Amino acid sequence: MNPESIQQFDLIVIGGGPAGASGAAAAGFLGKHVALVEKTCDLGGAGINTGTIPSKTLRETALALSGWRSRRLFGVDLSLRRAATIGEFMGHQQNVIAAERDRSEARLAARGVARFTGSASFVDPHLIRIVQAGGTEILLRGEKILIATGSSPLRPAEFCFSDDRVHDSDEILLLEAMPKKLVVIGGGVIGSEYAGTFASLGVETHLVDGRDTLMPFLDPEISRTLASAMAENGVQFHWKERVTSCDATKPGEVVLTLSSGATLSCDGVLVCAGRKSNTDDLNLAAAGIAPGNRGLIPVNGHYQSAVPHIYAAGDVVGPPALAATGIEQARVAVSDAFGSTFKSDLATLLPTGIYTIPEASMIGETEASLREKGIEFVVGRARYCDLPRGEIIGDQTGFLKLIFRQGDMRLLGVHIIGEQATELVHVGLIAMLAEAGAEIFNRACFNYPTLGDLYKYAAYDALAKSEQPQMY
Amino acid sequence: MNPESIQQFDLIVIGGGPAGASGAAAAGFLGKHVALVEKTCDLGGAGINTGTIPSKTLRETALALSGWRSRRLFGVDLSLRRAATIGEFMGHQQNVIAAERDRSEARLAARGVARFTGSASFVDPHLIRIVQAGGTEILLRGEKILIATGSSPLRPAEFCFSDDRVHDSDEILLLEAMPKKLVVIGGGVIGSEYAGTFASLGVETHLVDGRDTLMPFLDPEISRTLASAMAENGVQFHWKERVTSCDATKPGEVVLTLSSGATLSCDGVLVCAGRKSNTDDLNLAAAGIAPGNRGLIPVNGHYQSAVPHIYAAGDVVGPPALAATGIEQARVAVSDAFGSTFKSDLATLLPTGIYTIPEASMIGETEASLREKGIEFVVGRARYCDLPRGEIIGDQTGFLKLIFRQGDMRLLGVHIIGEQATELVHVGLIAMLAEAGAEIFNRACFNYPTLGDLYKYAAYDALAKSEQPQMY
Repeated sequence: MNPESIQQFDLIVIGGGPAGASGAAAAGFLGKHVALVEKTCDLGGAGINTGTIPSKTLRETALALSGWRSRRLFGVDLSLRRAATIGEFMGHQQNVIAAERDRSEARLAARGVARFTGSASFVDPHLIRIVQAGGTEILLRGEKILIATGSSPLRPAEFCFSDDRVHDSDEILLLEAMPKKLVVIGGGVIGSEYAGTFASLGVETHLVDGRDTLMPFLDPEISRTLASAMAENGVQFHWKERVTSCDATKPGEVVLTLSSGATLSCDGVLVCAGRKSNTDDLNLAAAGIAPGNRGLIPVNGHYQSAVPHIYAAGDVVGPPALAATGIEQARVAVSDAFGSTFKSDLATLLPTGIYTIPEASMIGETEASLREKGIEFVVGRARYCDLPRGEIIGDQTGFLKLIFRQGDMRLLGVHIIGEQATELVHVGLIAMLAEAGAEIFNRACFNYPTLGDLYKYAAYDALAKSEQPQMY
Repeated sequence: MNPESIQQFDLIVIGGGPAGASGAAAAGFLGKHVALVEKTCDLGGAGINTGTIPSKTLRETALALSGWRSRRLFGVDLSLRRAATIGEFMGHQQNVIAAERDRSEARLAARGVARFTGSASFVDPHLIRIVQAGGTEILLRGEKILIATGSSPLRPAEFCFSDDRVHDSDEILLLEAMPKKLVVIGGGVIGSEYAGTFASLGVETHLVDGRDTLMPFLDPEISRTLASAMAENGVQFHWKERVTSCDATKPGEVVLTLSSGATLSCDGVLVCAGRKSNTDDLNLAAAGIAPGNRGLIPVNGHYQSAVPHIYAAGDVVGPPALAATGIEQARVAVSDAFGSTFKSDLATLLPTGIYTIPEASMIGETEASLREKGIEFVVGRARYCDLPRGEIIGDQTGFLKLIFRQGDMRLLGVHIIGEQATELVHVGLIAMLAEAGAEIFNRACFNYPTLGDLYKYAAYDALAKSEQPQMY
């Protein structure tokens, strides 16, 4: 292939999920000539197609069909639709996915991003080969390159994924019949979210995890509250257990043997045993990049790899591996790559939103991380059930926990579990970005009756414990 | 009565609703000797007993029973419970009210507030007479006095409230049978809220208003969107009409004659024709205070009346007359009365939360108020349906509108309509309290997929229109 046939770009983005699309759009906005290469025909990646959006839509559908949100409000049983057909259950998420893909396509077109469909790999640190469906090859040369190829479910060898009752978290979206009894393997974010969704639909749901804690990165109070709320919602936990074998040879049932020797028979298995970065096919060696554990690409605070003109963002760089964080990481990377005047501390505060039932969210420091850093702090708490809005919606387990720096009472961490937790955390997010302290909640007048008032009550609680109590 | 029998207090609060209880608790916290006088046996006032909490609880109950939130999500009809009994409809709100009253009692007890039950009136500017149920009189002398007696529905003479099918907004809570056809008089906050609640339960609902706009204090785009969403939800509007007569003499129907000559027959009338301050029985003349229009007490920015040691807060001082604003006004008053070191600009930003279906909320400036002040501005908009979360919940009408000052892009106003609007406005509230601009939303990473992202998209929209576009 002669050099003239190599197309030149300021930026080549590999991967069309939330992070890749965000990075491409940002560079397009800066007037850069941008190419985006996506392996499949559809933009969106795991964020839109197989992960975030579908699982959240299914959750919302399950909550609506089961009447879960109103379960404590009435003496009556609203759960009339438990026998929901799988078609109803899956139909809505397909509409939502299609709409979001269209929006993503339109955004990229508006920014003049050139789109390529095919499998991308490095020829040298600046040269990318794209192999299209028919086998045609295209070569692109990029001044800068952003890798945003995402991640895929790990498929441990002990599970027979060839059996149509054994699923990873991608395949579960292709479910054709609702299982009667589902065993979820792994109490991470994905496993916990799906366990809650299926349990709320009345499926007998078991969760097997090798540890004794749900998502240990969460504040321990939040994690414990979540586990007991899930148990109350019908999820049966099998802690400190590993699956040693999975027998799917019988037509009626799949039998799992656990490390304790116990067995669990079921008609559905969902394996959520972590994810690996999609870097196997990139020929990273030609770029001079050595991938880390599970294929992830090591990056610095600007999402720059060991090779200065190559950046990586999103799931491919590892935790927190959320759509929201990938989108911001890619903007930081592009901003750094093109020396934008943009603030380089862009999005240093990345929230974690977990769509379990109930949902949970956090941002900033935990008590443990502050103890490690030797920073003294004051904790303020407010429970949903102490507010009229909590009473109205019948949320009896939710709470907000704010962590302030001792002395100046600056807000350092927000931890919340309960209805709307993933939205409510944003009030604290803005306060943290503004470098505000407890006094901002004291000055704030929240609508009544709302859950926003949790911030006021939690701040009061902390102020009362702090060295200089103020009026409240 | 000899002088020794007069009990002395640093502060006497008249009225035990949200404002009164808040003021009493705040003064108690400052170590003051406080008396709170409430006419009825129950604390709570309109905020807890007859207004805010009951109407919001009924709304939430109606939404849950009717499956309203999920109406666009499924091909199926979730509205299975329309034939809800009035008992189910009213039962939940009574539980919520009782719990909130208990919380209010406990808070006052914890602050050492002395409680008196009876009708209070001024003997002189510092002396309050309480007449108890049996006729016994008590005299209290207060260094400072806070009037928080609230407001009551106006009852225009053309309506025969003696008929049990004709209600004001207090009486509607005592409803014993669900009307088939309800006419709501007045498209203010209360009328609009109840019209939406009853319509969502399948009651044929009409709304009669003398103007041609719902709540003209709202941003016009919000007001128009709300009116058409309510119409789509089944509310039939009769604009620029007044009721000239109300004939309830027939057993089967109540017949309303409108100013145009048209008639409306129905089996339920709800009159929401404004409210008047509860000051008739206070003998304000003895205090040296002259009440204004509809009995309201004129106050300055610290909620101080013309008589310096007498303050007033909550509904009794007039609009916005919301529980949330009354609570903050009372804290400002107490802070001023006792020279607390507390910030005197406490709660200058009072949000308006409207629990219509869909709900709406606003804070700060409108386009009209900025034009009046000659301040140049940039508007940014984002629609719910342009975000995946909006798609997931099926909200097709909601939007967020942010108003920034031209030049420095400081946030001056937040206007929102749609699911969770009264919660979402708080993200903008904190940004405004922090004196932040569009850049804070640019730096923010919101959970995905959430409605919080509306702020990012609306800020982007405004930045793109502003003089100095930034990367987004």
